[in-house]
Amino acid sequence: MAERSTDPGVTIESLGEFGLIDRLARIVGRPGVDPLRPDATGAIGIGDDAAIWTPTPGVSEVLTTDALVEDVHFRLSTTSWRDLGWKALAENVSDIAAMGAEPRRAFVTLGLPPRTRICDLEDLYRGMNDLLEELSWTRWSGPLIEGGDTVSAPVVMISITVVGELRGEGLRRSAGKAGDLLAVTGSLGGSAGGLALLESGHAPLGDPDVADLIRYHRKPMPRVGDGVTLAQAGVRCGMDLSDGLLGDAGKLAYASGLTAVVEAHRVPMPPSLMRRFDANTARTMALRGGEDYELLIAAPPDCFTKLYPLLDEVGIVLPTVVGRLERGTPGQVTVLDEWGQPMDVGGGSWDHFGGQQERP
Amino acid sequence: MAERSTDPGVTIESLGEFGLIDRLARIVGRPGVDPLRPDATGAIGIGDDAAIWTPTPGVSEVLTTDALVEDVHFRLSTTSWRDLGWKALAENVSDIAAMGAEPRRAFVTLGLPPRTRICDLEDLYRGMNDLLEELSWTRWSGPLIEGGDTVSAPVVMISITVVGELRGEGLRRSAGKAGDLLAVTGSLGGSAGGLALLESGHAPLGDPDVADLIRYHRKPMPRVGDGVTLAQAGVRCGMDLSDGLLGDAGKLAYASGLTAVVEAHRVPMPPSLMRRFDANTARTMALRGGEDYELLIAAPPDCFTKLYPLLDEVGIVLPTVVGRLERGTPGQVTVLDEWGQPMDVGGGSWDHFGGQQERP
Repeated sequence: MAERSTDPGVTIESLGEFGLIDRLARIVGRPGVDPLRPDATGAIGIGDDAAIWTPTPGVSEVLTTDALVEDVHFRLSTTSWRDLGWKALAENVSDIAAMGAEPRRAFVTLGLPPRTRICDLEDLYRGMNDLLEELSWTRWSGPLIEGGDTVSAPVVMISITVVGELRGEGLRRSAGKAGDLLAVTGSLGGSAGGLALLESGHAPLGDPDVADLIRYHRKPMPRVGDGVTLAQAGVRCGMDLSDGLLGDAGKLAYASGLTAVVEAHRVPMPPSLMRRFDANTARTMALRGGEDYELLIAAPPDCFTKLYPLLDEVGIVLPTVVGRLERGTPGQVTVLDEWGQPMDVGGGSWDHFGGQQERP
Repeated sequence: MAERSTDPGVTIESLGEFGLIDRLARIVGRPGVDPLRPDATGAIGIGDDAAIWTPTPGVSEVLTTDALVEDVHFRLSTTSWRDLGWKALAENVSDIAAMGAEPRRAFVTLGLPPRTRICDLEDLYRGMNDLLEELSWTRWSGPLIEGGDTVSAPVVMISITVVGELRGEGLRRSAGKAGDLLAVTGSLGGSAGGLALLESGHAPLGDPDVADLIRYHRKPMPRVGDGVTLAQAGVRCGMDLSDGLLGDAGKLAYASGLTAVVEAHRVPMPPSLMRRFDANTARTMALRGGEDYELLIAAPPDCFTKLYPLLDEVGIVLPTVVGRLERGTPGQVTVLDEWGQPMDVGGGSWDHFGGQQERP
């Protein structure tokens, strides 16, 4: 955006709520449309009591809402406002992708200390816009930011709601069947690797592998095209990977009333992760690290043979098989090594309040 | 609800995220439906990546999102968790009513300190359920609570998204025309009166007037039926009164490109407010006090004659005319006394960050 930044001395306190809404709306507004007034399609922008839209005939509506809190989910000492904007929106877009749906509209609720600088908030919105521009290069566009709420708070909190459109049945966690193969898009562990490098405090940022891993952590790319295409190709079971493969595979298996088997050596990792960390650390990051925002699907083996040509046609890589669903204790996850022997890599997923826990 | 409360010693930290979601879901779940699994209508409850629904043919979708933060919007020393649940949901339902739409589904995102007691959260959800039960006595039901997100935070924050369905055009702030009469549902100032009594610290709670005013403050009733009926009867311009009549009339006038004239002596007040406070204080509370969650509409004079029989049929009281919209400085609000002379009652609406401000 060619938009100029506001002077760093200007805070929300000095600008007031309406001036703030006005400036932020301009960053993400559609060109030629006043974001504070209804546009030609009848949508009401930031400014009325509620947003309004006419659903596309024949689609289902899909909605997700997710919150990030300063010093819980991010630290402003290590995260730029611009990266924060990207990531906060990407997480929510990923939840829509996880349903096999296309994101259409986003609503951003901000809790902000009164002394927050306007130029930082502009960067937050620029980060969201960066993601939208990146998504606009694919055939599946991102959501329009249509409104929200801004309130005073002791720390920065960002709560985003994204609404999407789903054609057909979409992907659900509970749709797995015994005998389904588990597969993931992209590669895993990059975000955990990037976070570890950032936290070490002495990562050589000029190193391309380091830059690559930090990018995985800061600017994850939600798998909108993969989700839509997989669902249209007949995949019924899926979710996104936000809390680590083992934890999330446990959730999917639990929702489907089945047990999951993950073959550790099949889990794809970014080459940069394998070069930067020893084999054990890299594998643990790929199995347990969170925030990759790849998709985890479950589908019958014969579905994969049909998937390849359909995905290839739209330039999407076939997900990598990493395990299977079986009858057994719901939600249990067994990890096998390359000789088919059970491995102990620590269990379960991350719990937001109590730390580690066994499973849902 | 006959549901038993959880022992006060149990915190989110000790119960974990999944146990928490499970308990809260039971309080607001539909009887016989497991809130963690898809129900017969295809809706996905609390537990999948996103909620999903099939829009009713011919309706528009309406969405609002609003956040409350501890020690900014409420204090746990003076507000019970149960009242907080009512009010947080009521505010959002009111925004849907303000569009002339019917609330259908709600998503609750909570930021909570890890030591938050589960029994308090159960009370929060019981408060939301109290409102839903109260709304279910009317012909316009409240939204179903379908999901959300729960994260750790240094203070309690409640961010609610409500989605509604709108038939026809609905109410917009920008649809006012010069010559329209401004009118309000119910009475104004009750919430400000209740708050003043609570803050005084020595209100006789057994006094029925005191109890009445405190109820206005703690348990505002969103005007769902009024909004839907007014919109269906042809009213085009409206909003809800959350920031006080003068401030909100300014916003409506601004969005419509007009100036507002309010006749102070026409503003309806609860009898309890007039008995408990002197005339000047009561009038200021009715003009400037916020959180009444009544509706402010603007409509041509002849529309009101048509409105009466339509509203009467469904048991809704005709809104009280309190002023008019005129050509002039957009967003300006002039207050007149009973002799038509301009009065000075202090200007503008409350700004969440900078305190008082003149107008949008």
